[in-house]
Amino acid sequence: MFGKVLIANRGEIALRIHRACQEMGIRTVAVHSTADATAMHVRLADESVCIGPPAPRDSYLNVAAILSAATITGADAIHPGYGFLAENARFAEMVEAHGFAFIGPAPEHIRMMGDKIAAKAAMRRLGVPLVPGSEGAVATLDEARAVAAEVGYPVLIKAAAGGGGRGMKVARSDAELEEAFRVARAEAKAAFGDDAVYIEKFLDRPRHIEMQVLADAHGNVVHFGERDCSLQRRHQKLVEEAGSPVLTAAARDALGAQVTRALAELGYRNAGTLEFLWQDGHFAFIEMNTRLQVEHPVTEMVCGVDLVREQIRIAAGDRLGYGQSDIRFQGHAIECRITAEDPESFAPSPGRVSMYHAPGGPGVRVDSALYAGYAVPPYYDNLVAKLVVHAGTRAEAIARLRRALAEMVVDGVRTTLPLHQRIVEDAEFQAGDYTIHWLERFVARGREARGREARARAA
Amino acid sequence: MFGKVLIANRGEIALRIHRACQEMGIRTVAVHSTADATAMHVRLADESVCIGPPAPRDSYLNVAAILSAATITGADAIHPGYGFLAENARFAEMVEAHGFAFIGPAPEHIRMMGDKIAAKAAMRRLGVPLVPGSEGAVATLDEARAVAAEVGYPVLIKAAAGGGGRGMKVARSDAELEEAFRVARAEAKAAFGDDAVYIEKFLDRPRHIEMQVLADAHGNVVHFGERDCSLQRRHQKLVEEAGSPVLTAAARDALGAQVTRALAELGYRNAGTLEFLWQDGHFAFIEMNTRLQVEHPVTEMVCGVDLVREQIRIAAGDRLGYGQSDIRFQGHAIECRITAEDPESFAPSPGRVSMYHAPGGPGVRVDSALYAGYAVPPYYDNLVAKLVVHAGTRAEAIARLRRALAEMVVDGVRTTLPLHQRIVEDAEFQAGDYTIHWLERFVARGREARGREARARAA
Repeated sequence: MFGKVLIANRGEIALRIHRACQEMGIRTVAVHSTADATAMHVRLADESVCIGPPAPRDSYLNVAAILSAATITGADAIHPGYGFLAENARFAEMVEAHGFAFIGPAPEHIRMMGDKIAAKAAMRRLGVPLVPGSEGAVATLDEARAVAAEVGYPVLIKAAAGGGGRGMKVARSDAELEEAFRVARAEAKAAFGDDAVYIEKFLDRPRHIEMQVLADAHGNVVHFGERDCSLQRRHQKLVEEAGSPVLTAAARDALGAQVTRALAELGYRNAGTLEFLWQDGHFAFIEMNTRLQVEHPVTEMVCGVDLVREQIRIAAGDRLGYGQSDIRFQGHAIECRITAEDPESFAPSPGRVSMYHAPGGPGVRVDSALYAGYAVPPYYDNLVAKLVVHAGTRAEAIARLRRALAEMVVDGVRTTLPLHQRIVEDAEFQAGDYTIHWLERFVARGREARGREARARAA
Repeated sequence: MFGKVLIANRGEIALRIHRACQEMGIRTVAVHSTADATAMHVRLADESVCIGPPAPRDSYLNVAAILSAATITGADAIHPGYGFLAENARFAEMVEAHGFAFIGPAPEHIRMMGDKIAAKAAMRRLGVPLVPGSEGAVATLDEARAVAAEVGYPVLIKAAAGGGGRGMKVARSDAELEEAFRVARAEAKAAFGDDAVYIEKFLDRPRHIEMQVLADAHGNVVHFGERDCSLQRRHQKLVEEAGSPVLTAAARDALGAQVTRALAELGYRNAGTLEFLWQDGHFAFIEMNTRLQVEHPVTEMVCGVDLVREQIRIAAGDRLGYGQSDIRFQGHAIECRITAEDPESFAPSPGRVSMYHAPGGPGVRVDSALYAGYAVPPYYDNLVAKLVVHAGTRAEAIARLRRALAEMVVDGVRTTLPLHQRIVEDAEFQAGDYTIHWLERFVARGREARGREARARAA
């Protein structure tokens, strides 16, 4: 096992990695920008090295400074966390070239999954489901009708040569198909000089469901079930659940089997997450993240696994030591990402935290690098705390989340705590009845309602 | 289900009960002394009633004031927590006589178990193991030898009419038995006018192991395994574990079966804990606590159960809804009781908490009513936080405990955090190699070592 790990990150995830290392008896090296000299991950690490000024490109993306810090401190391995250099294949190569272990996948797999077209091609080849549709171009209306009948309406007709929405039409019935097919071909011809179009199922109300996978260097691959991360704003996840409110155990097992078979064939190693759109029982692969996810704690709580410890063990060459049938899913977990932002406008709210009180009691986990007196710097991601709850059922987890949110105090900066408190009270959320579009509408509705209230008060 | 519960307690356990109620959609009434007006349980409860001045007899033991508070606020039920009125049979009777549900056992069982002799007699009758020994008085040396051979050395010879150590002798071998038997009888004769003696196995290095039980009002009784609470100072538990480092699953199952059978026969209801001394594979019943225990969280973490929720459900007449085979034991949990006391002298250290930072991350639970700015009053129990960790194995739980202790900050009052940090580093503790006498010796050794250091520095 490694004697010393350098943590090439900051904030709650640097702390998360430090905790795993400390519990494994591994010494830690924190790196930090000048803005983070008093940050929690620096205070708790065994050693720390300043790697540059606040701007990320000068510090947390400064490969030369990070490799120097690893050399100076005699680290054996580097954990990149998420964000910053975590999915930079060149960084992974350089880490290994300098004789350190990279706690993550092989550079070739980071590179492959970083290219979204190559990733989809690989997954298609490996039998992972993508959006259903025509095999290639569709030449005639009869052919289009046959494809639509097979995948079901609504369908999306897309220019094969296209992009940017040109030559792209939605048809919701056979009646609409003829016109949409004609117009899409005409637009495609006009825009790209090629009237070839293909047809895909149009996912108008999908959920975002992802699968957590671990693979060791000895060919063992297991999955830890799904997370439902449909509650997003501008592609930023705000609330995540394990499991998904809409997935049966059989559906999880079936997707898990496809995914683990694919990654075994690929020779993938370490942690990875395959992201899917899900609608009407069908999964469509979107992309794969070749790193730890922000939302990994919900999986940890439901499966009783320490994913960071597993990442480190795998990077050190350990075997998983357990199989798929050893992994059990118990209860339900929900994570709220609490950011230092205005809960209405989402404007960043850096500044000094005057009071911080984490909720406690049964089934509550807080991953946060906050402390009373800490100044949230303006240079980085605004995530300041992950509040995670676990309980026997989804309804119990929601009740627990409500009471934990009520106990939590962060004063001095604005946070999204009030937004999370509103979400948890919403009947649609409570029913698990949401798509990836739900949260943006919820936020807009809330803004409108408070606008009306303000006008009423003024009148 | 109840609409409103009055919590007849303070501190972390009042908060624990409030959390369970809130998660069940039950409103809470806090009661408090004038010294606790700004306490966390008062701040978070839906309603609160001041029941008197600081002294416990005037407030938390003030039955009339508590019943008035329940009447005024329209509470349906009263949860007594632990300590104060929790094992007062008369209080339970009065609660019920006033038309409130008492969240605990029937008064007759509280009374029975409160009388330690009656409790032992009941358990003997119900087939629960007590200290092995002679059935009654032992008249001859040959008889004494036969009993000693059966229960094994060392044995304790005790005056049947005795008490206070008179007529009490330990024999560690056949060679010692003759002399000990003769002296014990002579002392018994001299002291009590009766030379009748009986013989028990002498437990010279026992562990304290207890069994958590739940019983509903419909005859269903289950156990949630054991807790090892051997680490005690003056009969106050400081560290508790689930499970015990020395118990096999088979031994747990066997004791659990005896205990649940006994309580079913007794018609016991709600939560209860049977405490045993354990040595060389044998259990000897000491007493039964007819209430929630301070250390219940280690059981909750290992079994994934919410014992307070179960207490409330049972008091409302619900069925358990699960059987013994549904209860699984996963991993290992350890609790540290952190008190506001000097870690060497155990002198109370009330006062204002200037900084409070709870540890976080995976597998860490904190039950505490502390907050920054809170003044620990001098009138009550010094327990200020329970730090509980859960992990896959005992070794992992210890590693997690070490890192959680390192993260925890309580400034402004002295606490036993440094003592817990020393315990967790100790090789004997890490090996699980301790008896009920271990901690006092550990504390004394530490005090001596620091005394030597101080003298060396002075020299």
